[in-house]
Amino acid sequence: MALTGELFIAGQRRSSTETFKAIDPSTGEHLPTEFSIATVADVEEACRAAEAAFIEMRGISHERRAGLLEAIADAIMELGDELLERANKETGLPLARLTGERGRTVGQLRLFAAEIRSGGWQGIRIDPAMPERTPMPRSDLRLRKVPLGPVAVFGASNFPLAFSVAGGDTASALAAGCPVVVKGHSAHPGTSELVASAITRAVAATGFPAGTFSLVNGPGNLLGTALVANPVIQAVGFTGSRGGGLALMKVASERPVPIPVYAEMSSINPILLFPAALAARAEDLGRAFVGSLTMGAGQFCTNPGLVLAVDGPDLERFIAAAAEAVSAAPAATMLTPGIYKAYCTGVDQLSSNSKVKLVARGQAGGTNACQAALFTIAAEDFLQDESAAQEVFGASSVVVRCADFQQLIKVLGHMEGQLTASLHFDEADHGAVAQVVPVLERLAGRLVANGWPTGVEVCHAMVHGGPFPSTSDGRTTSVGTLAIERFLRPVCYQDFPNGLLPEVLRDGNLAGVPHRLDGVYKVG
Amino acid sequence: MALTGELFIAGQRRSSTETFKAIDPSTGEHLPTEFSIATVADVEEACRAAEAAFIEMRGISHERRAGLLEAIADAIMELGDELLERANKETGLPLARLTGERGRTVGQLRLFAAEIRSGGWQGIRIDPAMPERTPMPRSDLRLRKVPLGPVAVFGASNFPLAFSVAGGDTASALAAGCPVVVKGHSAHPGTSELVASAITRAVAATGFPAGTFSLVNGPGNLLGTALVANPVIQAVGFTGSRGGGLALMKVASERPVPIPVYAEMSSINPILLFPAALAARAEDLGRAFVGSLTMGAGQFCTNPGLVLAVDGPDLERFIAAAAEAVSAAPAATMLTPGIYKAYCTGVDQLSSNSKVKLVARGQAGGTNACQAALFTIAAEDFLQDESAAQEVFGASSVVVRCADFQQLIKVLGHMEGQLTASLHFDEADHGAVAQVVPVLERLAGRLVANGWPTGVEVCHAMVHGGPFPSTSDGRTTSVGTLAIERFLRPVCYQDFPNGLLPEVLRDGNLAGVPHRLDGVYKVG
Repeated sequence: MALTGELFIAGQRRSSTETFKAIDPSTGEHLPTEFSIATVADVEEACRAAEAAFIEMRGISHERRAGLLEAIADAIMELGDELLERANKETGLPLARLTGERGRTVGQLRLFAAEIRSGGWQGIRIDPAMPERTPMPRSDLRLRKVPLGPVAVFGASNFPLAFSVAGGDTASALAAGCPVVVKGHSAHPGTSELVASAITRAVAATGFPAGTFSLVNGPGNLLGTALVANPVIQAVGFTGSRGGGLALMKVASERPVPIPVYAEMSSINPILLFPAALAARAEDLGRAFVGSLTMGAGQFCTNPGLVLAVDGPDLERFIAAAAEAVSAAPAATMLTPGIYKAYCTGVDQLSSNSKVKLVARGQAGGTNACQAALFTIAAEDFLQDESAAQEVFGASSVVVRCADFQQLIKVLGHMEGQLTASLHFDEADHGAVAQVVPVLERLAGRLVANGWPTGVEVCHAMVHGGPFPSTSDGRTTSVGTLAIERFLRPVCYQDFPNGLLPEVLRDGNLAGVPHRLDGVYKVG
Repeated sequence: MALTGELFIAGQRRSSTETFKAIDPSTGEHLPTEFSIATVADVEEACRAAEAAFIEMRGISHERRAGLLEAIADAIMELGDELLERANKETGLPLARLTGERGRTVGQLRLFAAEIRSGGWQGIRIDPAMPERTPMPRSDLRLRKVPLGPVAVFGASNFPLAFSVAGGDTASALAAGCPVVVKGHSAHPGTSELVASAITRAVAATGFPAGTFSLVNGPGNLLGTALVANPVIQAVGFTGSRGGGLALMKVASERPVPIPVYAEMSSINPILLFPAALAARAEDLGRAFVGSLTMGAGQFCTNPGLVLAVDGPDLERFIAAAAEAVSAAPAATMLTPGIYKAYCTGVDQLSSNSKVKLVARGQAGGTNACQAALFTIAAEDFLQDESAAQEVFGASSVVVRCADFQQLIKVLGHMEGQLTASLHFDEADHGAVAQVVPVLERLAGRLVANGWPTGVEVCHAMVHGGPFPSTSDGRTTSVGTLAIERFLRPVCYQDFPNGLLPEVLRDGNLAGVPHRLDGVYKVG
């Protein structure tokens, strides 16, 4: 399929006079297609269509909604290798990685289709009437959750498939019954166009209203601000930089009607190494750590940017093994020249910090290629200088040498909210781990035992979220089925005649639908 | 028990040199006791103690936490008639109403105790490991919800018991495992002191840390701002004016670490009268409407401040009956001189609006006594002039005469978010009701069929929440067991050894605890 560079406004392809081009980060050169830049009027039209679609979608059955998600998954697969090849050109990510990411993308669409059918997300509660109760009878009260309305989704650069046009935010918003207007990431407009064409085909084929999905493109903040400020939009999903997330939060909170922003922003994902584990396998841990650090050129929100351990010979062995692995790590093309530049700046700042010691750099070479970096710092210095805790997006990490376990806990107390915290320990460490878990529970959304934070499973029990600033709203997750709750709100129906209730709340319609009856949990 | 006017900072009574007095609204005179005004240092101390208590509370069993809520309920009952008498003096609310409100207050504490024991609020999800899965094995992933941390609660003036020191926000926050720092409402400091003494006794008797609860008092915004800005505080519960709620939202969003604010602010709770119902019982509806309107001098967030119907002879009959009932409605003391003054201003503004017609005033008389008011306006004029849709807190309501059903829908489209919407209809109206329900679902949190919005049941299926500005966060409720979710966030434990997991997540501990196992709902 030849790329046209067009926008998708409610099922219609459209071009504009102002255009931009994608860059191949491995060469720094522009790729050929001219991509249309949307206008604010395009955004407004997409939002109006989304509003109209929302009203229509409420009359469409859950089964058909599940079918839409499955049709999108099928249509993405039908794009074939062209999608992977274009994504590879635009992002520098290897084909094998992109193949896996495509699997995750269609897998999560299908998981959300199954989730719609499970029915539990409706949170149904029924408190039957008690006409005889004294001193006052009780009304019949029935609760279900309804979709919030049209959702704005911002594509992320680091997952051109799984967190972009048809990524987790789009899948969970559609699953909740919310139309989506995507602001595509300017780093992979061709990939976005292909995926948007697949969604648009699936929307039409399943008979959903055209405004169920739109894609607008354009560099800069103008379009994103217009989208979040549009009165039709009821929630925002975003994965990206802290600056970007904070800017959207500000726009959303200053609207006449403020709306929730689910922004996943920055995290350095501390790794805690406990003494017995270090003693038993310092070298293995060092090598495995670097595997997680350099995966995808370190361009994951769960990248391990900080290691905490009590100083001593075992930690030296860990550092030595990690340094050796870093030194051998091949250079890897980063997603964009901008990300590469920011990475270099971050590494330079750490290198020029007199308290921070550089212990290894990875292989250099290639345009916009990440050269991994490993640093150490004494905990005492780290506690004085928070700049070493700033996220450097890419394969850079800092080992914090703690004088003792109490100082390690103190360092944790100085950290900002995180997506993850990982612990490596042996049985002899269990006492110390038990002490630190309550601290980590407040710090992070996911605690990993004897594993690494990269590689986020898309399932029911996943939490890819965490206290600010790792996300804007630590009460939620952006990965896994729980993500659907971000786009729902409860409505109570009091004393409604059976025939006027929403279908699922009518008598006898709860077979197979989890709910609470007078407070008692039922599987349906 | 003699009132001392002292603050309660983490179990310690404390006085200050600056004081204020309560006002008996029925006389406008000060009541004798001098109440200490807290300093910012007191707020900080309460927050520090709450933080320490939070850490300790996480080690206390759910059963004991349920016991705390029950002990608070018992201790409130042990205050006896003195509590009701003091609340009556400070608020002008009749003893019968306050007796009912006390029942609701202790009832909701006991309901949340039962909710803690039900275990479902933990939202447990377990996705077992799949070591054989290809291409990648799946980790063992277990999710539970944990409390956010210390919560700031602002007492409301209109429910001196059920939405004040030991009200719904406090009960749900404690149930979630969050210590509470209450900013007492300056209108009923003696009532607050009595309830705080009961909570403090219950906290001590059940062995909870002293910082589990504190009460600070003082007029003005200084203390509340300091409380919400305190880094220890992780969420805010507020019921009050729109201005007050918006101010707290601003403070919370501008913190270095923003926190959620659950503010319940303003609502005019539209009543929709459908043709067949009006034809069948216009007079009965008119009288019943005025019963809801004048209940508690109209000082409910669910007070019906707007009536919508298609104009015609049946609506005239409704208005005539309502006008007669309003004219006969006795004057009723309002909660504070300030609320009375604001009510008079609101009614004066409506009266002086040339498009608005005054059709009845209630009986006058007595200090700070609400004189009910009923107005009409043509929908055409209402659509031009939104000032008639502003909440007038008290027993004032506006009937909007619509030219036809389409215009009625148009009026709804111009309204802001509401806590409730009520519909009066007969079978012949079902078609029209079915058309309007999807519109109302987006507008309000609770839809009432053939009933009135006042009288909020405390149960599982209740939603006392709604789109902005009725609340700051329409995804939640402040009444009923679902309110506990406001103070929780999910944490995922990946590959944890059984012995290091939180007790409830360990193998074999889910008997009786609702959860999802590999996505399948189980009642435990």
